[in-house]
Amino acid sequence: MTLLATERIYGGRVVNLERDTVRFPDGSVGTLEMLRHPGAAAVLPFLDDPAAADPRVVLIRQFRHAADGFIWEVPAGRLDPGEAPDACARRELEEESGYRAGALRPLTTIYTTPGFTDERIHLFLAHDLDEREHHREPDEFMEVHRVRWSDVLARVRSGEIDDGKTLAAILYVQACLRSG
Amino acid sequence: MTLLATERIYGGRVVNLERDTVRFPDGSVGTLEMLRHPGAAAVLPFLDDPAAADPRVVLIRQFRHAADGFIWEVPAGRLDPGEAPDACARRELEEESGYRAGALRPLTTIYTTPGFTDERIHLFLAHDLDEREHHREPDEFMEVHRVRWSDVLARVRSGEIDDGKTLAAILYVQACLRSG
Repeated sequence: MTLLATERIYGGRVVNLERDTVRFPDGSVGTLEMLRHPGAAAVLPFLDDPAAADPRVVLIRQFRHAADGFIWEVPAGRLDPGEAPDACARRELEEESGYRAGALRPLTTIYTTPGFTDERIHLFLAHDLDEREHHREPDEFMEVHRVRWSDVLARVRSGEIDDGKTLAAILYVQACLRSG
Repeated sequence: MTLLATERIYGGRVVNLERDTVRFPDGSVGTLEMLRHPGAAAVLPFLDDPAAADPRVVLIRQFRHAADGFIWEVPAGRLDPGEAPDACARRELEEESGYRAGALRPLTTIYTTPGFTDERIHLFLAHDLDEREHHREPDEFMEVHRVRWSDVLARVRSGEIDDGKTLAAILYVQACLRSG
């Protein structure tokens, strides 16, 4: 596929919407809407040894306008210009939860919804946490919770934990690190 | 949070971008950009018994402009107006893979990226598949692959499978159905 032209439709606080004119593999030409995103990092923080029988993790209850209410999430946020994903994960962990990561381990990277955005989220596991002061951004409404792993999995099964990046991080750890 | 006003910024083929003026829980007023999405369904199709030792599943290699290449995905697509998620899952499975589901089971529902869109994807597992003719949409460039579960998990661990909904469906099945 060849990019023939890009038109900026909207430049906003969070998203930039573009309409791209492309030549498809079969030679035809069409337009595609694309939300350009700088990328993000998210981190699943373990208060106890991640290999323990039933360790505690830190999860956030965050108000999301899109969900019209509070949802469970891992600490996460957009990459600052030039910021490495692991540095972003450490920064967001401390800003949102008040914990500093002694150790950080990459899990995987996901496209959140590649039909209309190039957003990728780099997922990490953090452990050996130190508690710090909270530095919240003024427009975020969130609570910090400490939750047992067995309770996390119960909330995944019930559908109560329904944020994509959060589910991916939890299930990656359960399927690939704790059961693998 | 109270919605005070909604301004349509852009109405497109796939997305509708709005700027909402809201009153936050602390009484302050601000604006939030929101991509309104009708919701979607995605389905992980098993060719063999999902409880078998190493069953085969059907995955799609789809060209995504956002990824600038082909990525692994489960069959998925947007809900038509008034369409139930399970009906959408069956329709997209048949359109994209050529298989009809004998049985469909809901897994969970995810917010893809709630910081800027209300998109939710309903995830399903399908089995007892019948092969049908393919009915592809003309702007989709995709291949149908049959992949062993052990190979799927290897591609998750290597990071080669990196679509959020696809990873969530695979890991939900592995962590909650096959290991639980």
